[in-house]
Amino acid sequence: MVMRSVDLRSDTVTRPTDAMREAMCNAEVDDDVLGYDPTARRLEEEMAKMMGKEAALFVPSGTMGNLISVMVHCDVRGSEVILGDNCHIHVYENGGISTIGGVHPKTVKNEEDGTMDLEAIEAAIRDPKGSTFYPSTRLICLENTHANSGGRCLSVEYTEKVGEIAKRHGVKLHIDGARLFNASIALGVPVHKLVKAADSVQVCLSKGLGAPVGSVIVGSQSFIEKAKTVRKTLGGGMRQIGVLCAAALVALQENLPKLQHDHKKAKLLAEGLNQMKGIRVNVAAVETNMIFMDMEDGSRLTAEKLRKNLEENGILLIRGNSSRIRIVIHHQITTSDVHYTLSCFQQAMLTMQEPSRT
Amino acid sequence: MVMRSVDLRSDTVTRPTDAMREAMCNAEVDDDVLGYDPTARRLEEEMAKMMGKEAALFVPSGTMGNLISVMVHCDVRGSEVILGDNCHIHVYENGGISTIGGVHPKTVKNEEDGTMDLEAIEAAIRDPKGSTFYPSTRLICLENTHANSGGRCLSVEYTEKVGEIAKRHGVKLHIDGARLFNASIALGVPVHKLVKAADSVQVCLSKGLGAPVGSVIVGSQSFIEKAKTVRKTLGGGMRQIGVLCAAALVALQENLPKLQHDHKKAKLLAEGLNQMKGIRVNVAAVETNMIFMDMEDGSRLTAEKLRKNLEENGILLIRGNSSRIRIVIHHQITTSDVHYTLSCFQQAMLTMQEPSRT
Amino acid sequence: MVMRSVDLRSDTVTRPTDAMREAMCNAEVDDDVLGYDPTARRLEEEMAKMMGKEAALFVPSGTMGNLISVMVHCDVRGSEVILGDNCHIHVYENGGISTIGGVHPKTVKNEEDGTMDLEAIEAAIRDPKGSTFYPSTRLICLENTHANSGGRCLSVEYTEKVGEIAKRHGVKLHIDGARLFNASIALGVPVHKLVKAADSVQVCLSKGLGAPVGSVIVGSQSFIEKAKTVRKTLGGGMRQIGVLCAAALVALQENLPKLQHDHKKAKLLAEGLNQMKGIRVNVAAVETNMIFMDMEDGSRLTAEKLRKNLEENGILLIRGNSSRIRIVIHHQITTSDVHYTLSCFQQAMLTMQEPSRT
Amino acid sequence: MVMRSVDLRSDTVTRPTDAMREAMCNAEVDDDVLGYDPTARRLEEEMAKMMGKEAALFVPSGTMGNLISVMVHCDVRGSEVILGDNCHIHVYENGGISTIGGVHPKTVKNEEDGTMDLEAIEAAIRDPKGSTFYPSTRLICLENTHANSGGRCLSVEYTEKVGEIAKRHGVKLHIDGARLFNASIALGVPVHKLVKAADSVQVCLSKGLGAPVGSVIVGSQSFIEKAKTVRKTLGGGMRQIGVLCAAALVALQENLPKLQHDHKKAKLLAEGLNQMKGIRVNVAAVETNMIFMDMEDGSRLTAEKLRKNLEENGILLIRGNSSRIRIVIHHQITTSDVHYTLSCFQQAMLTMQEPSRT
Repeated sequence: MVMRSVDLRSDTVTRPTDAMREAMCNAEVDDDVLGYDPTARRLEEEMAKMMGKEAALFVPSGTMGNLISVMVHCDVRGSEVILGDNCHIHVYENGGISTIGGVHPKTVKNEEDGTMDLEAIEAAIRDPKGSTFYPSTRLICLENTHANSGGRCLSVEYTEKVGEIAKRHGVKLHIDGARLFNASIALGVPVHKLVKAADSVQVCLSKGLGAPVGSVIVGSQSFIEKAKTVRKTLGGGMRQIGVLCAAALVALQENLPKLQHDHKKAKLLAEGLNQMKGIRVNVAAVETNMIFMDMEDGSRLTAEKLRKNLEENGILLIRGNSSRIRIVIHHQITTSDVHYTLSCFQQAMLTMQEPSRT
Repeated sequence: MVMRSVDLRSDTVTRPTDAMREAMCNAEVDDDVLGYDPTARRLEEEMAKMMGKEAALFVPSGTMGNLISVMVHCDVRGSEVILGDNCHIHVYENGGISTIGGVHPKTVKNEEDGTMDLEAIEAAIRDPKGSTFYPSTRLICLENTHANSGGRCLSVEYTEKVGEIAKRHGVKLHIDGARLFNASIALGVPVHKLVKAADSVQVCLSKGLGAPVGSVIVGSQSFIEKAKTVRKTLGGGMRQIGVLCAAALVALQENLPKLQHDHKKAKLLAEGLNQMKGIRVNVAAVETNMIFMDMEDGSRLTAEKLRKNLEENGILLIRGNSSRIRIVIHHQITTSDVHYTLSCFQQAMLTMQEPSRT
Repeated sequence: MVMRSVDLRSDTVTRPTDAMREAMCNAEVDDDVLGYDPTARRLEEEMAKMMGKEAALFVPSGTMGNLISVMVHCDVRGSEVILGDNCHIHVYENGGISTIGGVHPKTVKNEEDGTMDLEAIEAAIRDPKGSTFYPSTRLICLENTHANSGGRCLSVEYTEKVGEIAKRHGVKLHIDGARLFNASIALGVPVHKLVKAADSVQVCLSKGLGAPVGSVIVGSQSFIEKAKTVRKTLGGGMRQIGVLCAAALVALQENLPKLQHDHKKAKLLAEGLNQMKGIRVNVAAVETNMIFMDMEDGSRLTAEKLRKNLEENGILLIRGNSSRIRIVIHHQITTSDVHYTLSCFQQAMLTMQEPSRT
Repeated sequence: MVMRSVDLRSDTVTRPTDAMREAMCNAEVDDDVLGYDPTARRLEEEMAKMMGKEAALFVPSGTMGNLISVMVHCDVRGSEVILGDNCHIHVYENGGISTIGGVHPKTVKNEEDGTMDLEAIEAAIRDPKGSTFYPSTRLICLENTHANSGGRCLSVEYTEKVGEIAKRHGVKLHIDGARLFNASIALGVPVHKLVKAADSVQVCLSKGLGAPVGSVIVGSQSFIEKAKTVRKTLGGGMRQIGVLCAAALVALQENLPKLQHDHKKAKLLAEGLNQMKGIRVNVAAVETNMIFMDMEDGSRLTAEKLRKNLEENGILLIRGNSSRIRIVIHHQITTSDVHYTLSCFQQAMLTMQEPSRT
């Protein structure tokens, strides 16, 4: 008998659906390095339109999408970017903007909700025209939803205020929107409104949307022209990408409407977990498809032990830190999976905490 | 009536075959950024085995494969790489090894056959332990087949001699084998013998082999471990790449045996062209699937004019320089296509040269 | 009549003394790029000995000394350095470690006294052997005295605790000791004890010590060998530097013993200022030769206005921010200058605050 | 008895003269990082005027002057510079323009006289507006006099032709004029004419001119403004540099007129050497203060053995390669030194060649 498997490690673990596979099978393609793949063009046009920007570009990953965006906005040596100290670009992307791009990061504290204090952002800006002592601030980066705060959403208002600061100082604004559609659904706001203030946005197709591979960056025509060159330099120019773009087009149709269900299931799971003895979840902070679950203070049960126990029951999770587990819901997690997960957790907590009482 | 189209711009323009499409459709996949895609593992194992190296890594493009390889071998700041002045890495990859990798290129003249003089290579090496005035040579790059010499092959003997020089000086050897399988077929030598002297090799899956997307790099286990990190930094880590790797596995089975036919068709086309008045082809130099076709000296007909004329008949070509056209054969070019191409060329030469005689 | 001038902008503004000028005049020199300047050797040997390290290297500036040190310790691409968010390297050196060196900075909050929380440092370290997602921490930087905290000293105990963290994780420790001698004098501890835990140290000769030009970095023999190459690459290799090193040797003899007087004068000035209505100075924090003087909360008098007023009386100062002025004492400021400065301040505060009361 | 020493290793080995030492002793100085050193201003103004450019900047070395210039002209990532394959920047400056500046070098063959073929330069230019495959050519570098061709001069005509090519393609022109004054004297042309076509020039003060330390770069006001920032980033901002600039001002007065004597002595020495059995010198190619002296073909005497023998007589030389010795004349080499050198050579050739005949 095959064990039931519930993969809650990330929304990147989804398998392509039958419709996506069929789309890949039938995709009209051409050599996209030469600039001719028709399906890539269709996807890029659709994404540009949805995001309210002039143009779009398919890239192999969110990391490359962010790296290209930073490198295009900071194309002059001696540039500085302001970004959250707990944001994905700073924490999880190998420091590529510095080690590859030679861009100096200046971090501002990320609050619990993923925002940065507006005054702190403004105070961090250093004259984009440069000085003899300082690098020149050329870019501010936001992340929406903000992964390390548990998938919380940046509002239109907040984003626009940051956009105003950027404009006032002649600085660009990039949004790492790996999970931007989750924010859009959760806030009930179309994506183009969420990114109106931004000069560029990166959106992942292979997270909540469930496409097998790829991200898209959007911006002005001239931004995308420069981005194409940087993509080629980094080795992100690929040939018959229509096969991937076709799957992404299906993902947009199939899964975008399902994101709201992911959020509901996340809430359901969060509430269930929070009722368990020994576990704490800030349910109000579960705004989208992520849950940060903490072991209660003083617990002798570590996150790692709990994770391993659940893995034996087919529940796959990622440890946040010694007392935190991160759970991510995606379209291939059913309500039944949520209930199964809750019962496995319940069982684990009972078994694992008992011995420690004796 | 749809015009017949014969796309001779590059061997990168092939469309995935039905078998590839079906393989993509049925591919077993997982999240490869987390390291779990089983089809990627199968492809990487097969490639490592064929190439006689410990390990392999799928990458989005040949450019990234080369860039990663150079960056891994030259991971210490102040490194220099010796490479041909007419090789792909130096000429067509945006100077990425310098502008992204901070590696200093030292070029040696590429001879007509794509080799570099052995003494010149050795003379170019600067102490890999460094000095106060020189960067440290850490890598030599070869290209096999050599695109800018018209797809000519480097022999096992030549490669091993370069390998001996490298070893003698404590320097690594990388082979840009974008079209290595063409060399292997043309020389009648298994690929692993062609790359035995190399510390790393990049092989394209989406050139002659006809897969839609991707390249593979091979090398030692420790090389590939470091390569994974650089791939992630550059943004080349992708999710369910099994869909692409499945197509590549089919490509290896389907198209590897067909490369010899590409070479025969190239020879046929080269000979036909060389017999035309006003055109010169060094038929002996057509060793694989590429043809460099030159307008005869003093011709008033430019390569660009000829290219455009042929384009009107559906023959797609790329101009090399003002008097040269590059033609590349791939598995979707039939013998009939070759004859059609020859007749279109014949027609074009007749029509276009006549007026200039009056 | 020439106006009296009291230059309190920085301890970098000193003029060479007669003894230094004479030493420059008589210096025995040779070409130091070829490695033969005897006076440079003498200075380097003396500094290495004082600091308790194997070797030393003269460099044109503190900025270059720090940059070289970071680049040597982080010579492998993909390196990260942990440093204070308010330290000189991060704030005032053009972001050079990223924009020139490609090193990723990870900042930890600088406390008021210039330290960073030990747990925060340890938590910030990312496996120096690297991962696929993180850059590798290879270095921790401290600054002693810490300029942006007003010249406060890091103790031997604190430094050694940071050193233990570094060692435990296989990470190096660099000390930006631009004003290390001030810390040594203030703490009553020989410099070699203050830097025992460090793998490299940069000390400025042209700050409190009053030499016209230059800094020295010290470390192991192999560190200094690598540093020489980086110095040459950056363009810091200079010819007959004996003329500068001779002045520096005099500076060490003449001015090192006088630093204690600078500290006393700073205290005297700080206490005097703190007694004035409208001015606040944390006198206890004046540990060395710097004073941070703040306008009292709610004051309508800005730092800039006050600075300009004093400038008219020959008192040269640098504005810290809108309500802060930075004052630095050096060996060419006499006790009489301190009294003159206090009386000018008194006069300015009286005149400038009066109108605002009406 | 002290052995006579004749140091012919380079024109960088001169000792400051009494007048220079006195000037250093009396130099009026201030903190040049703050921008106030009056002697630096005087030197920069004088140099800018001599060179016919808007502004000038003192830098610690020729290497830094070249590096800054390349980095300012190529401030946008993805830049390429065209330069001679045997020029100082490419061969002897640690590859800094790539490893520090991220600039891609494209070399053109240096002819025997230090020029590059004009057509080859033009053919090497790649659209400065960029493409998806190529880096963007933003700069051409010349070297005058050209060290690795034995100090030969580029004419005004040649330089202007290169300037026209640069202008036609929207590319900048930098001249590495480390020994520009030697070219000016040898050609009988004022320096401003020699560099009229250039956007920037680097001139060394510590080579033939004999100042102890430093170089100057000149260019437009905006070029120099940007150069100041790059100088600071690299760590080339120094404090009381008036002491060095004062010596340089003397050097300009004292030694500029003496360069012609250096050239005459070089000619005298070259002719003397060329008459010796076993030695070949291309006397016609000795245009300035350098001599390349080759062992006659088939000689069993190596350059290294000869160098060592002469060193024992106090004649200091640098080996070029296994059969070449480089000799450089400067203002502290007298005619008597030349004769002494010739006699030592004569003696050495007699003694050292004899045994090999037996």
